[in-house]
Amino acid sequence: MKKLLLASTALVMSAGVAAAEVALSGSAQMGIVYDSSATDELSFNTEMGVTFTMSGETDGGLAFGAKFGAKDAVDADSGEAGTVFISGEFGKLSMGDVDSAADAIVGQIDGVGLTGLEDLNEIEYIGIGTAPGALYEYSIDGFSIAAGIGQIDESDRVISIAAGYSFEGFTVGLGYEDEDGGPDQVSISAAYSMDMLTVKAIYADHSTDGDSYGLSVSGSFDATTVTAFASRDTDEDTNFGVGAAYDLGGGAELVGGIARDGTADATLADFGLSFKF
Amino acid sequence: MKKLLLASTALVMSAGVAAAEVALSGSAQMGIVYDSSATDELSFNTEMGVTFTMSGETDGGLAFGAKFGAKDAVDADSGEAGTVFISGEFGKLSMGDVDSAADAIVGQIDGVGLTGLEDLNEIEYIGIGTAPGALYEYSIDGFSIAAGIGQIDESDRVISIAAGYSFEGFTVGLGYEDEDGGPDQVSISAAYSMDMLTVKAIYADHSTDGDSYGLSVSGSFDATTVTAFASRDTDEDTNFGVGAAYDLGGGAELVGGIARDGTADATLADFGLSFKF
Amino acid sequence: MKKLLLASTALVMSAGVAAAEVALSGSAQMGIVYDSSATDELSFNTEMGVTFTMSGETDGGLAFGAKFGAKDAVDADSGEAGTVFISGEFGKLSMGDVDSAADAIVGQIDGVGLTGLEDLNEIEYIGIGTAPGALYEYSIDGFSIAAGIGQIDESDRVISIAAGYSFEGFTVGLGYEDEDGGPDQVSISAAYSMDMLTVKAIYADHSTDGDSYGLSVSGSFDATTVTAFASRDTDEDTNFGVGAAYDLGGGAELVGGIARDGTADATLADFGLSFKF
Repeated sequence: MKKLLLASTALVMSAGVAAAEVALSGSAQMGIVYDSSATDELSFNTEMGVTFTMSGETDGGLAFGAKFGAKDAVDADSGEAGTVFISGEFGKLSMGDVDSAADAIVGQIDGVGLTGLEDLNEIEYIGIGTAPGALYEYSIDGFSIAAGIGQIDESDRVISIAAGYSFEGFTVGLGYEDEDGGPDQVSISAAYSMDMLTVKAIYADHSTDGDSYGLSVSGSFDATTVTAFASRDTDEDTNFGVGAAYDLGGGAELVGGIARDGTADATLADFGLSFKF
Repeated sequence: MKKLLLASTALVMSAGVAAAEVALSGSAQMGIVYDSSATDELSFNTEMGVTFTMSGETDGGLAFGAKFGAKDAVDADSGEAGTVFISGEFGKLSMGDVDSAADAIVGQIDGVGLTGLEDLNEIEYIGIGTAPGALYEYSIDGFSIAAGIGQIDESDRVISIAAGYSFEGFTVGLGYEDEDGGPDQVSISAAYSMDMLTVKAIYADHSTDGDSYGLSVSGSFDATTVTAFASRDTDEDTNFGVGAAYDLGGGAELVGGIARDGTADATLADFGLSFKF
Repeated sequence: MKKLLLASTALVMSAGVAAAEVALSGSAQMGIVYDSSATDELSFNTEMGVTFTMSGETDGGLAFGAKFGAKDAVDADSGEAGTVFISGEFGKLSMGDVDSAADAIVGQIDGVGLTGLEDLNEIEYIGIGTAPGALYEYSIDGFSIAAGIGQIDESDRVISIAAGYSFEGFTVGLGYEDEDGGPDQVSISAAYSMDMLTVKAIYADHSTDGDSYGLSVSGSFDATTVTAFASRDTDEDTNFGVGAAYDLGGGAELVGGIARDGTADATLADFGLSFKF
């Protein structure tokens, strides 16, 4: 088998490449997962994937592009996965399987572990509903605004708006999502980063399911990053976790985490290697 | 995420690359579609995809290659999608999900719109039947001939033959398709291109469904291309459409179209951005 | 469509590329298959695929990587296809859809034909069971050892161990696989290569299904490689085959084979072109 390697950005740019290009990037992980609630508590975890990132620029200086994972190639063909964007001084307009405006600006607190350990750190956004949707983002002088809408011919169409502000390491975000004939949710987050330490808090109030909130702290010391979080979901279950990542260089990390899943009344843990290509 | 960009053809060639290579290209579009017959007339349209194009050359100077879309990777493994070819002085032999000879030479009149608007401009070919099939093409001095056959162990096997001729901007094509124990179809097209104007007419006579025909006119003025077509399908429904594309440079186009769908008694329209990478 | 070609290894290396990269390689084949037991004995065969090969190196000099086919992108995301590895002086640890240790070291005798002709040359390994599994391999001074295990939370978990030794063209391998609550199998192979001739014999004893064995001989003369095999499966059916491949250069081969399928009481044959990109 003949292998053809891809050239680096620097090499390509200096050779004066055409504006439009398709880039390949990849990720993989190998490790072990513990779940106290499973019949067999330990299991292997392996994941790998490749992402296509397309980019170009119009003669007038607008940037455009598209991005999707190889595993989502079928759904990307119908805009149910992946995103397409165009951006310029007017901001950035994305379409496809976009985040809601709230998700894009309010975000999530940090999670732990090789596998994300059921993503217990994350609050649940209403999201964009049926894809393809559209997301508009604009940033200036530390201010960010965003507006999103799901597929417009759907009866459960979702709209979302959000705004954020960053100054001297401090970032705040406020978002609102509303589903036609369905629930709405207000979400807010505040984060502070100084040197290698980041603290982030989040709160969301869902009109039907109630509120959820969380706090995470991440600190980096040389090659090691340690993260801890505590969260409460809409079922009033409390989750918490702590994890660490050690940078081996070249795109490799040794990653592990342990978390308490309040809903499943289970302890989860994982450990392994994470690779970026 | 580490992104690896791909080098341009010029760069690779000057560096003396091995004959066999895999190239990546992509396309994406984002826009809005109108359909007067839908409950909710407007909807978002987003599509994106990546194509693998493989090429090589034998020591004896024969070119060979293969091509399929990332979304068709599973079907390409069994030859139900994608095509493989070898070509030389003897012509070009392709196998896989090939066009019928008639489709390859007689072709289609031009269509309009970002999404193709239901491809109302297109006549329906019998096609190659079950894939993998085979298509042989040979061209010399403006003459082209082609012969195709579907999977040979199928009871509904399709054979097709076609011939074309191009001279001084004028192109004519004639094709014939025949399904074992099924219908046959004769198709013919004539096109004329002068400067930036192209006119194309097509006619097909299906042994069971009756005849279909159409006419398209395309003109390019600076960065703008305007296209109009009228067609009549085998149900004797009349379709027509008009559209325009404005080249933004760098692989981006602003594209829109409007069409009358005679079968659905509907008006269709779309507008948006189309990108090539 | 803009095509972006990939740079060669030599070019990339001399330009000092980053450690982590994603490479693309491809394969395709086009030909015809004969099966005496089919209603229609002849059929077209077309196959094509692309493989993503990711590789990197940690600051401490450990190599890591991952590999999967585009058609397996969905399963690779859950480790049910593809493999991820890390290797160094300690050996190589792979996870995902790995071979059993026996399969990795004892291997298979050579097969024939463009399509493999039902892989009648191959003995059946118990394999790794449910993926993702893990495979550890270590080699030193001609000695190789391997140990494998399937997904550890499965009731039918499989373990395997194997060892091999190579000296002066002679290679021997011995493997053992055992399924929890299921069968086990011992397998052994011996091969001898001198100049362009390779002879390989294999034997396996399955605790439930009985034994299977085979012998293959391959010889290369200039651009031509001729292969013959005979095998007996666990149903005591005898299979044999003979085939040839002619190297056209540039990654292309003309390949054909004929085989006797003892189980199906059928004669199989194929002929066509095989391409590597």
